[in-house]
Amino acid sequence: MAATGTPSSGSDDRFPIRRLELGDKSKGFIDLLSQLSSCPQITDAQFELRFSELAALAEDHIICVIEDPSTGRIVATGSVFVEKKFLRGCGKVGHIEDVVVDDGVRGKKLGQKVVNYLADHAKRVGCYKVILDCTPELRGFYEKCGFVEKNVQMAIYF
Amino acid sequence: MAATGTPSSGSDDRFPIRRLELGDKSKGFIDLLSQLSSCPQITDAQFELRFSELAALAEDHIICVIEDPSTGRIVATGSVFVEKKFLRGCGKVGHIEDVVVDDGVRGKKLGQKVVNYLADHAKRVGCYKVILDCTPELRGFYEKCGFVEKNVQMAIYF
Repeated sequence: MAATGTPSSGSDDRFPIRRLELGDKSKGFIDLLSQLSSCPQITDAQFELRFSELAALAEDHIICVIEDPSTGRIVATGSVFVEKKFLRGCGKVGHIEDVVVDDGVRGKKLGQKVVNYLADHAKRVGCYKVILDCTPELRGFYEKCGFVEKNVQMAIYF
Repeated sequence: MAATGTPSSGSDDRFPIRRLELGDKSKGFIDLLSQLSSCPQITDAQFELRFSELAALAEDHIICVIEDPSTGRIVATGSVFVEKKFLRGCGKVGHIEDVVVDDGVRGKKLGQKVVNYLADHAKRVGCYKVILDCTPELRGFYEKCGFVEKNVQMAIYF
């Protein structure tokens, strides 16, 4: 299956996509995440610590963002990390997490742009598949991004 | 929800659980994984490289195994890795993968022992939840382990 084209295909080129930077905390990155899940404000020190922990994983865990050039605010984000397995001949799997687009900029295909960017990354670093979990309502969106439904997700909350 | 008791609760104490070791390749670890998914044989060098890559992640990616003391063969395994997020106050999530029990030793609750061990690890290192993807047929098994169904899993195979 053709997973993804060029990262920007079909999306709005006025909204370039890039990796998360330290300065994005002051551009509303945490506020944006709070549209997805509980996301209390964290200190700059906490942000910098987590940022450096993820940076140490290099290409094995990346976060991308889209900044609205007209406001300087982060309006879309998503992450992908690479799991290293023994099966499939020491295969690797990309796990996409925490995809969110700001309520105010819907309809510009920024979600698809984020997902394509992350799936392309997983493919580029040699993953044999990329997976994610979503609510049933988002099935159609991810199908448009090239995904097919595979399994059920189970969870324990501590 | 009470996720897990002691790792061995209800399971067969003749089958102790421990972390994966380098010597487990010669004890049938790869053969066991092939009962789960495509798992071609790999060289000792490939095994050692992947083993050291995972060891470098320390408590953020562990693999456990159960060795049958009567045969010296690995008969059950599973892994959990820890994803570091910004949301939930820089929260962490445990992802359980690649749980498999040898066909020849079913009925001894070794699968539950593996899952409990991995979920306990996730809890111990501070994860706010532990998740996994499974086929619908395994829903009942994971419910017995304390999991509840949450979402759907989507995938792209490259």
